[in-house]
Amino acid sequence: MQKYQHGGQIYDAQGAAGDWLDFSANVNPLGLSEKIRRALSENLGGVVNYPDPAATELKNLISLRYKIQPENLVLLNGAAEFFYLYLNVTRPQKILIPAPAFSEYERAARSINAEVEFFLTNAEENFHVDAEKIIAQIKSQETDCIFIGRPNNPTGNLISIEDIKKIAAHTKIVVDESFIDFLPEKSARESVSEKISVVQSLTKIFAIPGLRLGFAVVEKNLAERLNLAKDVWNVNFLAQKAGVAALDDEFFMEETRAWLEEEKKYFVGRLEKIRGVKFFAPTVNFVLLQLNSQETAAYVLKELRGKKILLRSCANFVGLDARFLRTAIRSRDENKFLLDALQEILKGVLS
Amino acid sequence: MQKYQHGGQIYDAQGAAGDWLDFSANVNPLGLSEKIRRALSENLGGVVNYPDPAATELKNLISLRYKIQPENLVLLNGAAEFFYLYLNVTRPQKILIPAPAFSEYERAARSINAEVEFFLTNAEENFHVDAEKIIAQIKSQETDCIFIGRPNNPTGNLISIEDIKKIAAHTKIVVDESFIDFLPEKSARESVSEKISVVQSLTKIFAIPGLRLGFAVVEKNLAERLNLAKDVWNVNFLAQKAGVAALDDEFFMEETRAWLEEEKKYFVGRLEKIRGVKFFAPTVNFVLLQLNSQETAAYVLKELRGKKILLRSCANFVGLDARFLRTAIRSRDENKFLLDALQEILKGVLS
Repeated sequence: MQKYQHGGQIYDAQGAAGDWLDFSANVNPLGLSEKIRRALSENLGGVVNYPDPAATELKNLISLRYKIQPENLVLLNGAAEFFYLYLNVTRPQKILIPAPAFSEYERAARSINAEVEFFLTNAEENFHVDAEKIIAQIKSQETDCIFIGRPNNPTGNLISIEDIKKIAAHTKIVVDESFIDFLPEKSARESVSEKISVVQSLTKIFAIPGLRLGFAVVEKNLAERLNLAKDVWNVNFLAQKAGVAALDDEFFMEETRAWLEEEKKYFVGRLEKIRGVKFFAPTVNFVLLQLNSQETAAYVLKELRGKKILLRSCANFVGLDARFLRTAIRSRDENKFLLDALQEILKGVLS
Repeated sequence: MQKYQHGGQIYDAQGAAGDWLDFSANVNPLGLSEKIRRALSENLGGVVNYPDPAATELKNLISLRYKIQPENLVLLNGAAEFFYLYLNVTRPQKILIPAPAFSEYERAARSINAEVEFFLTNAEENFHVDAEKIIAQIKSQETDCIFIGRPNNPTGNLISIEDIKKIAAHTKIVVDESFIDFLPEKSARESVSEKISVVQSLTKIFAIPGLRLGFAVVEKNLAERLNLAKDVWNVNFLAQKAGVAALDDEFFMEETRAWLEEEKKYFVGRLEKIRGVKFFAPTVNFVLLQLNSQETAAYVLKELRGKKILLRSCANFVGLDARFLRTAIRSRDENKFLLDALQEILKGVLS
């Protein structure tokens, strides 16, 4: 497995998309809303024009829905663009990453030749991120910048806003809230300051990862610098249209949260009864699993692939190993199909 | 007019696209091919998946059609992404730009706090770029990097590959061939080296600027560094599909070249007969115009806007002023509509 390889690898060596039931990418299983589909379909012909470089319509709607001042906003070609953009502009020398974490934090940090240190959390403590211990490490290593997922991918850990602020007293912090819309929880974006920057994806909740769309909320001078450090057309025309249609829809997010609350219960309830797999309590639409051995995990992955199901091996996450798998939470039927299969496979292993 | 404002400003203050006949952006008037339209329409539902991070299908096709080794290739979210990416990775301190030029070269250079010098070409010499004089300036200023459009936007000047190589003996050079496919001319991409990098847009020739798509051909170690300095999903799923459909089509590019050869003749023939406007011989699908005074140019722009026609004011190009306008070459009917209007307006001014 390659160091920075992600989930969602549905493409074969020729680049053709396979017919997978993909639990390896964490995309909203409610899928493309009718409103977004219509917006795309009606605006296809508009790709002959440049995108609005000011992205006025989308920016206004994001400002309104998320209660952000437009001058704090940076529109992104997917949230992942932010890590590179932010680091290119701010150029920290020492970066701390609580691990395991989304690997693009490290990849982006290496790309500017920053020193990367990890703060290792562990399975025994449910990957709890201890703010006091992190602060001690920041002080001893003179960290310039820390990246934290909220909730964290793949562990699901949700750091409190209070802890974010405590850490920010000692270093700059990038809070990755790419999954926050799946929860009713308060966002860190209300705490944005010279030290605290928040980035958010719109592709997971609205099921449009193929279109690329995200935004960052940052202190306004930094927003100006970031906006000057990328070309003005980074968010393509259809992503802008999809974003507008998505945020015009008041019900989709609530529907998603209601679905997730219900489905998390089902998923966890089933996992509790399956022998041979440990899991870490999910906060959003993915669950980290731990098998008894790397061999068992490899066998589970192989057997599931045989049923056209993809899970995410966590072998390439710093702080995890091949015993760990990540699964998305999908629709009831799909979850049942996965969990039945998992139960069956593990029964065979244990007997 | 804002310093880095571009053509294609069809959006109003609310972000709504107006009903303009847009001569201010240089997009192929043959428009979206049926093959691309079908590819988009058939793949709309695929936006629920991440783009192929390896972009295998598109990369293979680009390699084949443009005779490039895949290891020299960097796929881009539009050609403009390259200037920022390249500069972030290579970090030159002194950048030379023959002016007038596409303003993103300067904007990107400023974003990394590089020193920017201009090599001013002038109307009296038809904006000819003199390689020997440029080399002298490179030597005296210890330039690290030079950006050259080939052909150059907005002047149309087409520097020879021989001159590119001469200049590259003294500094790194980024050759922007975003419009080269409109011509049968040889590309600089065959001369790529540690010094010579070539970037190309696919959105102008294939009329998909709203989707964002381009590529760079660079020395292979640099390609590796550039690919590591951006996230792997920068080219969205629909842009990849459109690119594949576009490059699968063997005839569209030839059709475009045939159209342009014919239409350039018509456009130039008409301009020669219109009193009160000077023009600079076009190479590709745009023409630089010069009016007698800034007042006349402003009046022409205003009158054309009244007829729902947009031209590009060149007031914000370094080395030009508000007397200069840039117009795209579009379809025969549209060109006739513009040129009739221009003739009429200038007749009124001169009488």
